[in-house]
Amino acid sequence: MDKVAVIGAGSWGTAIAFVLAENGHDCLLWTRRQEQSAEINERHTNEAYLPGISLPRNLNAVSDLKKAVEHAEIIVIAVPTKAIREICIEIEKYTEKPKLIVHVSKGIEPDTLKRISEMIEEEVDPGKRQAIVALSGPSHAEEVVLRHPTTVTAASHNQEAAERVQDLFMNHYFRVYTNNDLIGVELGAALKNVIALAAGIIDGVGYGDNAKAALITRGLAEITRLGMKMGANPLTFSGLTGLGDLIVTCTSVHSRNWKAGNLLGQGKTLEEVVSGMGMVIEGVRTTKAAYQLSLQYDVSMPLTEALYSVLFENVPPKEAVDQLMSRMKKQEIEDIFYK
Amino acid sequence: MDKVAVIGAGSWGTAIAFVLAENGHDCLLWTRRQEQSAEINERHTNEAYLPGISLPRNLNAVSDLKKAVEHAEIIVIAVPTKAIREICIEIEKYTEKPKLIVHVSKGIEPDTLKRISEMIEEEVDPGKRQAIVALSGPSHAEEVVLRHPTTVTAASHNQEAAERVQDLFMNHYFRVYTNNDLIGVELGAALKNVIALAAGIIDGVGYGDNAKAALITRGLAEITRLGMKMGANPLTFSGLTGLGDLIVTCTSVHSRNWKAGNLLGQGKTLEEVVSGMGMVIEGVRTTKAAYQLSLQYDVSMPLTEALYSVLFENVPPKEAVDQLMSRMKKQEIEDIFYK
Repeated sequence: MDKVAVIGAGSWGTAIAFVLAENGHDCLLWTRRQEQSAEINERHTNEAYLPGISLPRNLNAVSDLKKAVEHAEIIVIAVPTKAIREICIEIEKYTEKPKLIVHVSKGIEPDTLKRISEMIEEEVDPGKRQAIVALSGPSHAEEVVLRHPTTVTAASHNQEAAERVQDLFMNHYFRVYTNNDLIGVELGAALKNVIALAAGIIDGVGYGDNAKAALITRGLAEITRLGMKMGANPLTFSGLTGLGDLIVTCTSVHSRNWKAGNLLGQGKTLEEVVSGMGMVIEGVRTTKAAYQLSLQYDVSMPLTEALYSVLFENVPPKEAVDQLMSRMKKQEIEDIFYK
Repeated sequence: MDKVAVIGAGSWGTAIAFVLAENGHDCLLWTRRQEQSAEINERHTNEAYLPGISLPRNLNAVSDLKKAVEHAEIIVIAVPTKAIREICIEIEKYTEKPKLIVHVSKGIEPDTLKRISEMIEEEVDPGKRQAIVALSGPSHAEEVVLRHPTTVTAASHNQEAAERVQDLFMNHYFRVYTNNDLIGVELGAALKNVIALAAGIIDGVGYGDNAKAALITRGLAEITRLGMKMGANPLTFSGLTGLGDLIVTCTSVHSRNWKAGNLLGQGKTLEEVVSGMGMVIEGVRTTKAAYQLSLQYDVSMPLTEALYSVLFENVPPKEAVDQLMSRMKKQEIEDIFYK
């Protein structure tokens, strides 16, 4: 039994805490909002994020971050990418002995182009942390709390830490692999949201599964090309955290990024979509970061460029899709993998 | 303008002929059934296979195979895998000058373990054929005839022939790549039906998108492993005819193989499913062939084995899925790609 704190009580943070509590760990779930914390402790629900789900009785919430951090040997960070640095600064403040840090966030910071683990490294003093592990894979929170079979990857440069996280989460419905390609896992997790937005647009403009499949295929190829230049193992992108997560995000009704793209494709503006959804759409910021990465690493990423032009340069979605579909080269393998 | 005969007027054969006629080619569509041929010529519809669709006025059908073959410089074979040999024998009989042969079928012959192009090579005398080209990719017929953007691959050992087929079909909504990895394209096209059946079973037993994404990921990895041993380029499996077709087949409402798996997952027997659907379910025969290939090439294919046990050994679907999900190894990349 381990002492764990999950930082962030959105749908995924709550689902992760659900698994930890069911596995018998002493898990505290932190949320900034006192009323949410009270709801979890008193009614054992988190209706705003996981409607209709009963949380384990042994899962307790706190709104005091100091208390959560002091409680834990292992910290699981589950906040949106843009809140990572701020929360790390707070976590460090309350940390005395170095702790194992796990994160379940999916994004890349625009402008700095840092991955999540790099942001954590920058904000938490090396004396206050042990290894950093990313937990990622095709895993809708809504299905995990129904105990539907789910398979994810614990990725770290430190194999021992990855295995500790594997043991922490593993149970009969939540299966955990390990992978030492932290770069590839974090990139795949972040960049699939770009493709999911594009897939939503395809559906939104009224095109079908043929077009969507072609673009998902090209999308995975372009993030693989970028990843290879950034030092990732190309095979990681064909694994759970790449292809697996991509499939779930592009084809599932639960996906926020797909939903956002779908509304864009139907003609809504980015402002209308973002304000209307009331949840963070990681893919929008990540598209900006991905576009910047394609320039920095000089990698051709036609899908990312097309999406960037829709989000930030007012190109009509249908025009961008049509242009992308007609950008054909003669040889499939050459075009997809070596451009 | 080329003279083409499309042999087989199911949904895909008809859609392919639709594209050829729209491109201005002199295309004859052959069907064994006279009343279907009359419907296409008189009412310009093929209601049984593409309900509600008006076919081009310049698309004519015949029920006389001799007439179709004699008319054409290029033959496009669009019959189910199990009818390939028989139709080739007939085609050869009516052929005088050698013709370019294209096929759009997806399967592997059980027991002989031959790909479609190998069966064609065996049945049509070399003096009566030019190159063989496989046309394959994520392409539901129902969407092609709505002119929704679709992207496919023309694969052949003969690059010139692949490019001729590319030119034949290419238009603004039907985009054609070429690929010289005929083995990889044909294997991917056939084996994705095995994974689609399994994906349908996952949905049928009531599991969610997380489980399906994990199994599709493992499925693609195992057909890639097999393909590499059989001489295919592993990148082909990450392209349109592998991953692309896999996504469309596993996640689309149009897919017969997915539907069949779904019914199996709900508890129907194989006999009930096959007799109830009234269309050929290529994945069932292909599962047998894939299982035999895994033995012959000594490749670990857990998903194929699980599906084989459901189809041919009466293992309950849920039991097979649960067993598959729990067959976990520690390291993702090692397990997925090198086993």
